[in-house]
Amino acid sequence: MLNIKITGSGHYIPPTIETSKQLSFKIGKTEDWIISRTGVYNRRISDIDVDQMAAIACKDAIGDSSPPDLIINASGVPKQTIPDTSVFIQKELGYSGIPSFSIHSTCLSFLTGFNTAASLIESKQYKKILLVSSDRGSIGRNFSEPESSALLGDAAAAIILEPSTQSSLLDYQMKTFPEGALFTQVKGGGTYRHPDNPETLDKDHYFTMAGPQVYKMARKKVYSMISQSLSKNNLTVSDIDLLIPHQASGTAIKAYSKFGGFDESKVMNIIGDYGNCVSASIPLALSVAIKENKLKRGNLAMMIGTGAGLSVASAIIKF
Amino acid sequence: MLNIKITGSGHYIPPTIETSKQLSFKIGKTEDWIISRTGVYNRRISDIDVDQMAAIACKDAIGDSSPPDLIINASGVPKQTIPDTSVFIQKELGYSGIPSFSIHSTCLSFLTGFNTAASLIESKQYKKILLVSSDRGSIGRNFSEPESSALLGDAAAAIILEPSTQSSLLDYQMKTFPEGALFTQVKGGGTYRHPDNPETLDKDHYFTMAGPQVYKMARKKVYSMISQSLSKNNLTVSDIDLLIPHQASGTAIKAYSKFGGFDESKVMNIIGDYGNCVSASIPLALSVAIKENKLKRGNLAMMIGTGAGLSVASAIIKF
Repeated sequence: MLNIKITGSGHYIPPTIETSKQLSFKIGKTEDWIISRTGVYNRRISDIDVDQMAAIACKDAIGDSSPPDLIINASGVPKQTIPDTSVFIQKELGYSGIPSFSIHSTCLSFLTGFNTAASLIESKQYKKILLVSSDRGSIGRNFSEPESSALLGDAAAAIILEPSTQSSLLDYQMKTFPEGALFTQVKGGGTYRHPDNPETLDKDHYFTMAGPQVYKMARKKVYSMISQSLSKNNLTVSDIDLLIPHQASGTAIKAYSKFGGFDESKVMNIIGDYGNCVSASIPLALSVAIKENKLKRGNLAMMIGTGAGLSVASAIIKF
Repeated sequence: MLNIKITGSGHYIPPTIETSKQLSFKIGKTEDWIISRTGVYNRRISDIDVDQMAAIACKDAIGDSSPPDLIINASGVPKQTIPDTSVFIQKELGYSGIPSFSIHSTCLSFLTGFNTAASLIESKQYKKILLVSSDRGSIGRNFSEPESSALLGDAAAAIILEPSTQSSLLDYQMKTFPEGALFTQVKGGGTYRHPDNPETLDKDHYFTMAGPQVYKMARKKVYSMISQSLSKNNLTVSDIDLLIPHQASGTAIKAYSKFGGFDESKVMNIIGDYGNCVSASIPLALSVAIKENKLKRGNLAMMIGTGAGLSVASAIIKF
């Protein structure tokens, strides 16, 4: 157990809405096909970059409080290769001198960052950590892959973590299975498919996902992790006041009720309005839940999801 | 103080040597110009990618011991955007199910990762962490920018961290100053200069550095951090048995003696043979020092460096 408290939260939802009808013309599928396959009615398209999106979410989380003593960017895709995106976020916030770095595990970056930030507080390295996830998946959409391009949306969300005697991170688990490494990819952006490489193709710079294979591999592993995490803490599904899943797809979210036993009213489901916002999905759902008073002090919440890798992670917090 | 011990270390140095004479024809400068400006006589050029380089270093560090319970990739540049490079490293190592993620702060990624890993151990989240830095800077060289392209070299290095009652991370400090954000860049690889962006130029996919501006900004901040870290721990320069600096440039390394007061024999200087290996420079110098018995149990070592951002970080370990 790590003794931390979420003392602030906020998010940024870009104002431009792209409806599934608008998208249907770009990907050669009907509005109904998109909605039935992905569960996404609308997604947001940002015209500002990830650092600016992140800074708006951070300001919402910080409010009138003092600056953090550490900034962790926990996003799926960087602004640029060098320097680290956290530097640009700090620049947008108008700070200087605050240590900043990034943590990366694609869609699970926020959960990995959450456990890491909690450990850094528990071990007395920092006292007030700003953790932010900002992703602009719309930039990497491949319109010739209709399903994945219909899923992605843009958003940013941030939280503040501080030491606490009441609230806590009760349990955290993560597992990575490289046998799923090729199911979800953006091949470009690094050393492997550098633009100078004659083997690099245009589509290497876009997101690609073998959705059904991911879902098949993930479902068993996710439920085994939920069972282990709950039983390890002498909890049952009904003890969890709110489930905050990664918004992977409409089907994936519904599976937490259909197969996982969680009451639908206790599962945060915002994919219809915002799509899959990569790393920002979990903290956005968390921030929305806090603002809508769906998560109250003392409540138990479980955050859970899968990410490219394939990785699975879960966290139980006493809010 | 965090109670951790480096229980294993290893590195990978690619076999192909590029001499400064060989490079001189590519960048239109003489061998003497290269050596006098950068301090680099030879650098290594890898023909395997960062994940394979990392895995060789990891195997060297792990030896015959049991697998780690966490893998952290702390490298400057990823293999590809998605999934995370740590997944590919785990794949190369033949493991499955071990949680894996990346920590990024360019040339300081290893130090950031070291403090984070130490905190994760101190807070009892993990018991045996594999921390690896692998960079293939040769891929991003811009031959029309002679100085930076003469600096970069390829390497990987890894360590194992475990709980300890004798060894420790005595002190860790980091500061990030976004006013230096544009001094060292690879603009491409993320959302900002995506290949689809009509403003993206070929050179955006290469490394660029305003060396003199970085050096000028960094020197004061580095020495102020050294002084603070030493005095906070009631130590003086002479108490440090070995200084392990980031191999930024020949000038930068010599400055630790010339201005910092460290005896030259106590400063790890491997830039002549390997160049600036981005994130791998510090752990490579550490691993070489351990193999050459320059660092013995009970010794105090300071690891220090600067990274794009501009960030400065330092760590004092009781080895």
